[in-house]
Amino acid sequence: ETSVILYGSLDGGIGYQRVRGNDFKATRKGMINGIRTENQWGLQGAEDLGSGLQAIFQVESGFDLNTGDTSEYETRLFGRHATVGLQSETWGRLDVGRQTNIAAKYFAEVASPFGEDFNQASVSTAFSAADVRYDNMVMYQTPELDGFRFGVGYSFNANGSQQYRLNGGGEPNVRAITTGLVYENGPLEAALTYDQFKTPTAVNDQYDEDERGITVRSWNIAASYDFEVIKLHAGFGQTRNGWFSEMEIGDEGLEELSAVDGLKVNSYVAGISAPVGSSGEILAAWTVADARSEGDAKTQHSYSLGYTYALSKRTDLYAIGSYAKNVAFQDDLKATLIGVGMSHKF
Amino acid sequence: ETSVILYGSLDGGIGYQRVRGNDFKATRKGMINGIRTENQWGLQGAEDLGSGLQAIFQVESGFDLNTGDTSEYETRLFGRHATVGLQSETWGRLDVGRQTNIAAKYFAEVASPFGEDFNQASVSTAFSAADVRYDNMVMYQTPELDGFRFGVGYSFNANGSQQYRLNGGGEPNVRAITTGLVYENGPLEAALTYDQFKTPTAVNDQYDEDERGITVRSWNIAASYDFEVIKLHAGFGQTRNGWFSEMEIGDEGLEELSAVDGLKVNSYVAGISAPVGSSGEILAAWTVADARSEGDAKTQHSYSLGYTYALSKRTDLYAIGSYAKNVAFQDDLKATLIGVGMSHKF
Amino acid sequence: ETSVILYGSLDGGIGYQRVRGNDFKATRKGMINGIRTENQWGLQGAEDLGSGLQAIFQVESGFDLNTGDTSEYETRLFGRHATVGLQSETWGRLDVGRQTNIAAKYFAEVASPFGEDFNQASVSTAFSAADVRYDNMVMYQTPELDGFRFGVGYSFNANGSQQYRLNGGGEPNVRAITTGLVYENGPLEAALTYDQFKTPTAVNDQYDEDERGITVRSWNIAASYDFEVIKLHAGFGQTRNGWFSEMEIGDEGLEELSAVDGLKVNSYVAGISAPVGSSGEILAAWTVADARSEGDAKTQHSYSLGYTYALSKRTDLYAIGSYAKNVAFQDDLKATLIGVGMSHKF
Repeated sequence: ETSVILYGSLDGGIGYQRVRGNDFKATRKGMINGIRTENQWGLQGAEDLGSGLQAIFQVESGFDLNTGDTSEYETRLFGRHATVGLQSETWGRLDVGRQTNIAAKYFAEVASPFGEDFNQASVSTAFSAADVRYDNMVMYQTPELDGFRFGVGYSFNANGSQQYRLNGGGEPNVRAITTGLVYENGPLEAALTYDQFKTPTAVNDQYDEDERGITVRSWNIAASYDFEVIKLHAGFGQTRNGWFSEMEIGDEGLEELSAVDGLKVNSYVAGISAPVGSSGEILAAWTVADARSEGDAKTQHSYSLGYTYALSKRTDLYAIGSYAKNVAFQDDLKATLIGVGMSHKF
Repeated sequence: ETSVILYGSLDGGIGYQRVRGNDFKATRKGMINGIRTENQWGLQGAEDLGSGLQAIFQVESGFDLNTGDTSEYETRLFGRHATVGLQSETWGRLDVGRQTNIAAKYFAEVASPFGEDFNQASVSTAFSAADVRYDNMVMYQTPELDGFRFGVGYSFNANGSQQYRLNGGGEPNVRAITTGLVYENGPLEAALTYDQFKTPTAVNDQYDEDERGITVRSWNIAASYDFEVIKLHAGFGQTRNGWFSEMEIGDEGLEELSAVDGLKVNSYVAGISAPVGSSGEILAAWTVADARSEGDAKTQHSYSLGYTYALSKRTDLYAIGSYAKNVAFQDDLKATLIGVGMSHKF
Repeated sequence: ETSVILYGSLDGGIGYQRVRGNDFKATRKGMINGIRTENQWGLQGAEDLGSGLQAIFQVESGFDLNTGDTSEYETRLFGRHATVGLQSETWGRLDVGRQTNIAAKYFAEVASPFGEDFNQASVSTAFSAADVRYDNMVMYQTPELDGFRFGVGYSFNANGSQQYRLNGGGEPNVRAITTGLVYENGPLEAALTYDQFKTPTAVNDQYDEDERGITVRSWNIAASYDFEVIKLHAGFGQTRNGWFSEMEIGDEGLEELSAVDGLKVNSYVAGISAPVGSSGEILAAWTVADARSEGDAKTQHSYSLGYTYALSKRTDLYAIGSYAKNVAFQDDLKATLIGVGMSHKF
């Protein structure tokens, strides 16, 4: 018997965004969407094969609620997730296809109360590898054992269909590894993750000559503790020789899976959340990304404050305010987001 | 508890289309689709939040049945509809996202037995604002009260993601307003709607310099009365300084949300429908669009006759014949559609 | 009552592919997908209209599991199938829309144990018309009668929206016909199919001047017999003046629905399958495509061996090895595929 679930999430509201530099200011007042949770719909299924073994699959599509179009960041039909695999309570799960990396699964929610959500309040603003998706990936995750869970994935090409390698030529694909550990014991959670990708050595349109054959690495560590009246989060990470997720304002900054030989960025986050009444929660976080290797790069800081109010298990109202300076390491580039909205899951 | 409905509509058949000008004739005999109802599939849900309040959402995708591709007119994933909101029997409903304007909801079905369907027989052929979709819209609609229902929507950018406005620069977005009233009392229905959009004042690729900063308006009024043996429909409207929906044959005519300073178009429709036996219905309509401001513009007329036969509540057979002259105000440009098909809803 | 079924299939694994010519070798080791069954999801419905009549519809989307994108071969939303129609046990079924041709339905599975699946092991590698989809098609199929079933389809334009024909100009559309017969009687199955399309006589970007107005034909015959310990398959076919499905390696070869006046290709297939234990099956096939008309064209051969192991009715493990030489009739061009994977239907 296969059970198939049709699921999704919708998020929309009203907000104000401002980007300000030394010599310009740009503002946008209007509809916001996908802030609390990115808009998505998907299909998920599991079939019992006997002996505790299950065939599992998931496909997930992202879209923008303001236009109805596929998501600006994931224009593919099932750009958020597309895997098939096997799962066992004893042996863990094995998936092949496109999905998020281990850091998105284990690290993001531990490091910050905003996790990988809430737009510019996301921990991925400062932690390059905290929210990345890889194509062509084989991923294995253990079952939980004494509170521990371990996962490792290998991607034969991180972005797009895998290319043929010519005999005598270089490697045309971006090979990526993602791995990590998460630990949960009552109020304590901790996560340690590592990601790396290597840019092609073969001639490649996406990478200039000096960006080829570079191994980009990121490791990240985080812990959270729930004191019940408040929950504390903290995280630290390093990214070397490039950047995993996009970090751009306008045309400046770093593209997805970019290589910059010698770049050293240290990332920090501290966060706090506290329940307010029976249905409310206040969230706050401070993130820092310090580009230590670059003389003229400024340290990026973001300060975010959020509030969620649960109308039900599946529907939230939310408010968010976030301010970032030296965005994408650029002197005096500031970004502000203020918004209220509603998020509904089905 | 969230209830999610997977719904859709499929429509296909065989038809003949002809476009004829002073010096050319073009014909197409073959498969037609989306005539009676445009092809679509969607997801719709409502979750009870208590106190008569519901979280609601809807996403809807349009496609062409002849090729399986996204609809020629709405190529986006959920180009027909993408909203999330709240609904209460007492307070009405509030939605944010992309959806049709108030005129499509209140006016089209009252003004003509063809409503916004049946291809060139649609009332939107002559009434510019009768079937428009806006992005980035916040819409509020009252509950029905003594037969009345009122709605108003504001779009922060009518088509596409909202742009940032540069300090000291003009407005880069197309702001739109849609509002109206519908009344239903036994056999009588009446509707009054108003739409406006303002083209950007900032430099914009889509609008030439003389098309910028223009406010385009349309108001429309209609009534229908059901005498049981026949139902009569009539409507009148004006569009000023531009055109809302596309009105093109080949490369000539008016694009969607186009601005033409000084353009004055008056629109008329008269229609009739009558049940034939227990399952059949005959539909007929005459529409006129009179471009009064333009010396060389000709008055567009369309004459349409249709027949539907219900095989069930969800499945119709249909036949349609429609003839239009001076299409898109162009002298002697004629368009003919003859077709039979089947329409199925699920 | 309409019953709507949400269905799909997911397929992923690990494999090795190699393409080798006289002066180059290209390899790809990594994730494979859609080998056993192409990745797809769809909606299918039937509504009883009384008297044994049903309204039926189906829409089906194809995608790549390695990237989550729409299928490389069918980038349209519902590129695999989009039809609506009527069905009766007495009168058969009538569909309009996009779907596979009669040869894909009747011939492919009879001719080879691999049918139209298993990538380069597919019978369509050698039989041009064995797996084609047509747009704008009206298709009629009889019910099964004494083991026989007959089908015929006419496409007003085989690929893309139908074009208007200018008075005095040539035909701008690719008209296609597909027809055939399948017979099933206990262990014996047999199929005979015929396809033809005619390239446009009007000026057309897709076809050069010497490729216009050409009628391309293919007829195919196959039989299989199930001896229970083994099942034997054999097929023969001819394609004349062009090629139906794509037959390319890199930039060389024949595009979909291409016309080559005078081209004569004879196609052969022999196949065998045998159950192994209660859940396993071995499959083997040899296909030949002999371009008799071309002096420098080489005869293409493919040799394929497969194994499937059913974990359940809906989930298979599989292994495949296939070797082809003189691919796309090119001297010494060789293609190899070796892979293992899992296929899950829901």
